[in-house]
Parts: sequence; C-alpha cells; structure tokens
Amino acid sequence: MSEQNSDIYIYGRNPIEEALSIEGNQIEKIFVRDSISDGQLSKIFDLASQYRIPISHVPGSKLYDLVGNVNDQGVVALRSEISYTDFGEWLDNIDTSDYPAVLLLDEIEDPGNLGAILRTAAASGMSAVLVPKHRQAPVNATVYKTSAGTAGRIPIVRAGNLNQAIMKLKDEGFWIGGMDMNGDQELWNLAVDRPLAFVIGNEGSGISQKTLEHCDYRFKIPMENNVESLNASVSTALICYEWRRKK
Amino acid sequence: MSEQNSDIYIYGRNPIEEALSIEGNQIEKIFVRDSISDGQLSKIFDLASQYRIPISHVPGSKLYDLVGNVNDQGVVALRSEISYTDFGEWLDNIDTSDYPAVLLLDEIEDPGNLGAILRTAAASGMSAVLVPKHRQAPVNATVYKTSAGTAGRIPIVRAGNLNQAIMKLKDEGFWIGGMDMNGDQELWNLAVDRPLAFVIGNEGSGISQKTLEHCDYRFKIPMENNVESLNASVSTALICYEWRRKK
Repeated sequence: MSEQNSDIYIYGRNPIEEALSIEGNQIEKIFVRDSISDGQLSKIFDLASQYRIPISHVPGSKLYDLVGNVNDQGVVALRSEISYTDFGEWLDNIDTSDYPAVLLLDEIEDPGNLGAILRTAAASGMSAVLVPKHRQAPVNATVYKTSAGTAGRIPIVRAGNLNQAIMKLKDEGFWIGGMDMNGDQELWNLAVDRPLAFVIGNEGSGISQKTLEHCDYRFKIPMENNVESLNASVSTALICYEWRRKK
Repeated sequence: MSEQNSDIYIYGRNPIEEALSIEGNQIEKIFVRDSISDGQLSKIFDLASQYRIPISHVPGSKLYDLVGNVNDQGVVALRSEISYTDFGEWLDNIDTSDYPAVLLLDEIEDPGNLGAILRTAAASGMSAVLVPKHRQAPVNATVYKTSAGTAGRIPIVRAGNLNQAIMKLKDEGFWIGGMDMNGDQELWNLAVDRPLAFVIGNEGSGISQKTLEHCDYRFKIPMENNVESLNASVSTALICYEWRRKK
C-alpha cells in the first residue's frame, strides 16, 4: 500500500530538462507559454518527443494557475506523483545484511531544507528517508525544485509515529544516532559496521526530548567562533557523507 | 580601509536574542511592535538593558517599512553594518605559518546559500571568506538571518577580481582547490599541510572555466542515484569539515 501525494509541477528549463533526462517516463504533460518560440526549448521538445509526452501551448496565466508567482521561464511540467512508501511495507522488505543507513526526519519544516536533505540522502547512498505524517513539510513542487529533481530517487517512507518507528527499527538491528550539540561522541567516531538510522531534528528546536532518549548515541559536530548550530541540511550532509566515507 | 555595507536589520525573536547574547555591542537599536506585551520579550529586554540599547515601540507598519513582508514576530533590531575587509589589507596581515584555509566564492547568487556558507565557514574555522565585488549576493538582512546571526564572525574579504586574487594567494603559498564533478581527486584525499583556498562555484554554472584553470587540484564528491551535484552550501560544508577533520 502506497499513499499518494498531490500533483507535482516542475518549473524552469533546467529542472525540466534534468527531469526529462533522468526520469522522462515520470513526466505526464508539459505546458509551454504561447509567447515562447519553440527554438528556445528545443532540448525539452526533443526529449518530450522521445518519451511521447504531450505539450500544450497555453497563455502565461495558465502557468500562473499551476505554479503561482515563480520564475517559471515559460515552461511547466506535470510529474506523476511522488509516492510515499508505507513504513510497515518498507520494514517488511528491508535487507540489513549490508548495513544500510537511513535518515529519520523529526519535523523538518522548511521546504528548502527538505529538498536539500532528499538530494544529499540520494547522493550519499542512504537507503531511505523516513518522515513523520504530521508537522513535517510535505514533498511538494518547492521541495522537488530545491532537491534539483532528485526527490523520489530513494524511498520516502512515512511513519505515523516516529518513536514507534524507532522501536521497530531497533528490533531489526538498527542503531539510532542523533545529532545533538550536547552529544558525547564526535561525529568522526561513527562506526558503520551495523545498520544505522540518523535522526535529524527540527530547525528551531532540534530533536524532541523523547526521541533523543531513544537514541543509542548522540554525536556532535565541532564548532568554533561561538557558532551554536549548523543549518539542518548542512548537518545532515556531514552525517551522510561521514557514513559514505567510511563505507 | 574597510568598505561598508548597507544597514542590517535582524528580525525574529531567536535571531535577535542570539545576536544580543553573542555580539550585543553590535546592536544599535531595537524596534518592538506596540501591540506586543513586554513580558513576551523579557529576555530581549534584559539583554538590551545590559548593553544600553534603545528600544522603540512602533506600529506594525514601521516594522514592515524596515524589513518588508517577513515573519518578524513583532521585533526588529538594527545591527551595525557588517564590514567587508579589503583584500590587499587582509593579505598584508595574513599569517600562513599554521596553514589556514579560506573560501573563495565564485558568484554565489542565492542569499540563503550565502548565509549557510558564512555560518559553516565560521563554525569550521575557516580564516576568511573571499567574495568578488560583482555578480555576488550582497551580505544583507536575509543573508544575516539565514546565517543564524553568524555572518561577520570571520572576515568577509572583498576582491575586485577573483582570478587576480587567486594569483596573489598563490604567491603567498596557498594551494587552490576547486570542487568539480569532473575532478580527478576524491575529496577524502585532501592534504592539509599547506595554506588552502577552496573555490565554491555558482549554483547553476559551477566554477567559471578560467578560474578552474587556476586551480591546483580539482576534487569531486562521490554521488549515487544519478545525482549530478549537491546544493552549494552542502558541498561547501563537506569541504570545510573535511579540512576541519584532518586538522
């Protein structure tokens, strides 16, 4: 059972070119502003033709209706919905023998952060990104754009309750690590000889207290110049790539 | 000789509290919406009193005039301007004996990226961030906010021409490293036994060709799932902390 998200509209020439190049079969329709000459979008038209994607020439107001007041560069594409994977289904099928790593997002609110996190998670080889059902930015067009079209390359797994999900991950042999400025482990001490789940806290309040108590270890990133924390997508990248470096 | 930037208004309770805590002497004035009760801002009022910072109670429209349509939470602070340091002056005073590292931004356009980069640069212990005078996002209120108030903790050095600055850095013994998806070095091979300057390319077009030719080495970050690049602030963080880990 997969649950569906609402329509995803991609806008702008580069994002649409990239989406067509990498996952052309996911694009359902392309809308082009009628004042744009076909020559300006020749690469997009070529790719669309290759994947037999219908193109509609429409007034600019129609693009506005689809994506709002953004710099759409005269072209918008409808992508088939990004599916969330059900947590139970995902857990039933996971193979932990090669020590995978996953991210658990504890109420990330900013779509830009979520997009950057999904992009880094895919690039670094995370097996999945788990998100809670509530108080979490949805995977929408803004997230897709800021992920540079990479959202959906690895499963986005939706869990009803993050702490219950953590208990089930522990049953499957996962170790739970949380980034915490008061952590007792240096990030560099990370051991990767086990399945790992990294909890990423909310931008303002960090990891919730109850979730922090479920963590098997809490690690911190060294910081100078009285800086107290890093951007959530930056912290996440440092964890993901510390894991990747050691693999 | 330092050149001055325009006024920096900080908005929102947490950013202002942090600015007051860490650099209270940089805050010149605080504006509070007149419909806010003093009790809601008691920590800010305490800190302001400690630094003898004047507080004005003003209508909401005045806050709008200062910072525009943002979530100001009823409070705005005027920070003394963040100074740019002149490149020549900075270069005359640099000590390379303990192998410092600096960032060179090659036309970063997005204020959110610039803020996150300045924050990570300060946290990881970079000695300075060099920015070109033109085609580069200015250090304004948005940048200050997305840096979580950390912009200005390390020198922001403005250079008229990035390639000329690189030649002068080389004369001082710096090695120039550029992030490039076609690079021949893995990021993890970074050697830190010399002064280092890392070039961070534009979000869309990367490092300009001429600048890339000046790089002593080009390194790449391993990526899976057909991801072709990472967010500029994420790539920067991986470089900064790879340097920090090895120091």
